[in-house]
Amino acid sequence: MNSTSKDRPLRGRPRDPELEGRVFDAVMQIYAHGGWSALTFEAVARESGVGKSSLYRRWDSQQTLLHAAMKARWLPVHNIDTGSLHSDLRELAQMIFDNRTGHYANMSNRLLIDAARFPELREVSSPYMEETVLQARAIIRRAAARGEVPASLNHGLLMDLVVGAVNNHVLTTPPKLRKEMQRKAPSFLDELVKIVLRGVEVR
Amino acid sequence: MNSTSKDRPLRGRPRDPELEGRVFDAVMQIYAHGGWSALTFEAVARESGVGKSSLYRRWDSQQTLLHAAMKARWLPVHNIDTGSLHSDLRELAQMIFDNRTGHYANMSNRLLIDAARFPELREVSSPYMEETVLQARAIIRRAAARGEVPASLNHGLLMDLVVGAVNNHVLTTPPKLRKEMQRKAPSFLDELVKIVLRGVEVR
Repeated sequence: MNSTSKDRPLRGRPRDPELEGRVFDAVMQIYAHGGWSALTFEAVARESGVGKSSLYRRWDSQQTLLHAAMKARWLPVHNIDTGSLHSDLRELAQMIFDNRTGHYANMSNRLLIDAARFPELREVSSPYMEETVLQARAIIRRAAARGEVPASLNHGLLMDLVVGAVNNHVLTTPPKLRKEMQRKAPSFLDELVKIVLRGVEVR
Repeated sequence: MNSTSKDRPLRGRPRDPELEGRVFDAVMQIYAHGGWSALTFEAVARESGVGKSSLYRRWDSQQTLLHAAMKARWLPVHNIDTGSLHSDLRELAQMIFDNRTGHYANMSNRLLIDAARFPELREVSSPYMEETVLQARAIIRRAAARGEVPASLNHGLLMDLVVGAVNNHVLTTPPKLRKEMQRKAPSFLDELVKIVLRGVEVR
């Protein structure tokens, strides 16, 4: 976990991982179900059982709260660092797949829809997406530093192939084939990573 | 153009490509700007200069009208058939890129947002997406029939790589880099198709 001063709760409060965990779960739950307009401190206090004043001491706005929760729960790409490009990409593919099919699957659409309506939400979602893209590219930068990939490799394109293929797979699978998609996911993701690495002549 | 009886204007009217063209442009324009609730026969008549009664004689609902316009203008994948897998995929990648960055770029988001609010729009967008996916897979089926690809190839995965990578590339490029993205698109799309075909061991 890659924690900079920017990510720490505000106003010098010491971290309390258990409390933060409950708050982040509540934020994700509320946001995924009700969107931006449902995400009030009131609702988060009710859902998490954490007092409003405790929340305010740590996060000063809906934005800070959603950003912190997404960083911890949504696509924590910064947690991926296995030491090999193959297994880093396999973990990333799995994370995207789980993200798109799991408990918070409709959050992507929510973010997109809300970003069109609420400029203050764009102040959270745009930097979050940019950070996540940079974290994903860091996977390839580390592989390059280990000498695993050709110097000429287009890092962005490699990432587009892995992330984009998983997204497209989930988005274009019709409802009647979702169960089969879930069942076949491990071999699908294995094959995907293998094809991409062969395509960019790694290994 | 792959025209089945289902796509023909209703009630036995002979086709009038010039009139249809104007109507489809108007439908796309209105929908991309105002969404489903803006897409009335009134508005289409005004924008296209085609009388409402002419419209009603050909299309019996907003749904039929939007479906016909999307089929002609949105992602006409059924028009791609160059005779080689490499150039079919290069054309497809270009079509997705243009679709995502061009005049109607915000239509994808519109469709997603409207589909959540208007069940009657889902009756257009879901079958349209399924048809488009099948048309895209037909590209690979034809390549298989020509003996261009290994029999074991996962058609869906190949398509996910090409389409998904282009989508991800456009979606994750921040506004300040859009011009550079446009400038580099030809070489990006060339490299993308080359990597995917090498990955699946074609050629």
